[in-house]
Amino acid sequence: MRNFDATTIAADLQTGNRAALSRAITLVESRRPADRVLARELLSLLPSAFAKTLRIGITGSPGAGKSTFIEQLGTQLTEEGHKLAVLAIDPSSSRTHGSILGDKTRMEVLSRNPMAYIRPSPAREELGGVAQATREAIRLCEAAGYTRIIIETVGVGQSEHAVQQLVDLMVLLVLPGSGDDLQGIKRGIVELADLVVVNKADGDRIPLARQTKSDYNLALHLAPARADGWAPRAITASSISEGGLIGFGESLLAYLEQLGTEGLRTRRSDQTKQLFTRSSDIQALHLLQEDEQLQKVHIAAQLALQAGEIDIDQALEQVRIALHKRLSGHG
Amino acid sequence: MRNFDATTIAADLQTGNRAALSRAITLVESRRPADRVLARELLSLLPSAFAKTLRIGITGSPGAGKSTFIEQLGTQLTEEGHKLAVLAIDPSSSRTHGSILGDKTRMEVLSRNPMAYIRPSPAREELGGVAQATREAIRLCEAAGYTRIIIETVGVGQSEHAVQQLVDLMVLLVLPGSGDDLQGIKRGIVELADLVVVNKADGDRIPLARQTKSDYNLALHLAPARADGWAPRAITASSISEGGLIGFGESLLAYLEQLGTEGLRTRRSDQTKQLFTRSSDIQALHLLQEDEQLQKVHIAAQLALQAGEIDIDQALEQVRIALHKRLSGHG
Repeated sequence: MRNFDATTIAADLQTGNRAALSRAITLVESRRPADRVLARELLSLLPSAFAKTLRIGITGSPGAGKSTFIEQLGTQLTEEGHKLAVLAIDPSSSRTHGSILGDKTRMEVLSRNPMAYIRPSPAREELGGVAQATREAIRLCEAAGYTRIIIETVGVGQSEHAVQQLVDLMVLLVLPGSGDDLQGIKRGIVELADLVVVNKADGDRIPLARQTKSDYNLALHLAPARADGWAPRAITASSISEGGLIGFGESLLAYLEQLGTEGLRTRRSDQTKQLFTRSSDIQALHLLQEDEQLQKVHIAAQLALQAGEIDIDQALEQVRIALHKRLSGHG
Repeated sequence: MRNFDATTIAADLQTGNRAALSRAITLVESRRPADRVLARELLSLLPSAFAKTLRIGITGSPGAGKSTFIEQLGTQLTEEGHKLAVLAIDPSSSRTHGSILGDKTRMEVLSRNPMAYIRPSPAREELGGVAQATREAIRLCEAAGYTRIIIETVGVGQSEHAVQQLVDLMVLLVLPGSGDDLQGIKRGIVELADLVVVNKADGDRIPLARQTKSDYNLALHLAPARADGWAPRAITASSISEGGLIGFGESLLAYLEQLGTEGLRTRRSDQTKQLFTRSSDIQALHLLQEDEQLQKVHIAAQLALQAGEIDIDQALEQVRIALHKRLSGHG
């Protein structure tokens, strides 16, 4: 990427050039120090206000039908004249490092749609890595003229928390019959949702889907009232039936009306505040990792720890003293 | 706590005095700088090798029967002559700040057992907060003569990852009938488990529990081979039937035999290495937060960001430059 300068990339990007957008996203995903410098420069060149965009987060376990739902929703959005970007966060399991999303051909129709741009985004294991890279990718897509951004993630752990902090509307897709253990593992994820969509409500599954919708609505009504006045709700949807997303569209409109321009602005502003604190922490840790003197102390402490010469508290004390001295100007 | 000195606390603790243990755990949980100094001093006074202890992590969604299982298992362990400490990590949902564990009277038998010590432990929202406080609490319990430590957590998000890094054996409790969506939300948690226990395998539920055990075993067999040679397995258990935990005891023994003293030592050593890195990061962030000059820059950047005068990248750049200058001795 070093052959490109930020001004050129910014200009190419804003013409709507897809290849330029892809290259720019690759740049902001890179953690090489030189790339970070270029990425910061690029981001500083982009206009910052994109009031007319809408960012939709879609999560749900594999099998909940996210790909088909996004194909259908995305096609409708492009038919309404929107340019659509789909950023798919691809979490790797922490132990196997394997992808659980499968291959990228799963949105065949949308991937041939000239108004749609689909991009898998690697999930970082580190704290906030998802948030920072994805936030920057969203900015790039918006600068490239995309007015609807879908962020897709799999509800298996931490990434949906990060995504909820990046979107205007968080949608949880669930399967008919999944509403019976809402005290359990899923509760934390349900709490993040502005809208729970009981998907695959078609054919034989319609009665069960309606029951499941009621189960979720019951659970959602127990949640405390929100400052923005929106009461998260469950609805049913079908990505394969004619008109199967009408209820979704209505709920989306109801949500946007409830929040209004001011509500959405407040939400983005609150998100920015939280993202700043987190990103600032990550940035600080990266800076400390690049500091040779501190790294020497860290490595020495780790070796002594592994050799059993000191325990973890003593090791931590050594790095604490080194950083303390450094900040006091004595290191 | 400032009226106590570390030497006195360390001595009281090692006599097995329960009140001293409770006070010491409260001390290590505190984030007040003065308390942290005292906590570090206390930990440095404790002997560091406790080879004869066993740390068991138990996770599972609410309703999986963790309390009853721990009561039964804990009672058996004390009957075998062990002093047992149960550290229950109490996660608060990030939005409601409510406890989902319910009240602490749920282990009635064990709480009256003089050989058992039960302690709820607050879950921190910050990265690694659980790990550090719980790790230190484990050390205190072991110094107080407890040879079996159970760390209980609810499988709703991040805390079970932290716990897995603290224990010799990670047990996942699941309900009969829960094995049908193993591609989904639960997969990440199953991967953390050394042993999956299909609990409540009693009465009518025995056939379903056996089927569920097979489902989990099938999923577990798909996981890549582990360096320590242990193949995680699913078993059934009942906390209310006579001999309902015999299978668990056998599997625990098989696990300990497979790993051997050397395997457990390697596991703890690997955990220590990872904990050191994480704890070191947290410690660094705390130190930076205590730095007045950096905090001034941070607050100013945040205010400018909220006022819309700068964007998040510019805000991050301001704090980056401040920290960079500081580390270079120019701040």
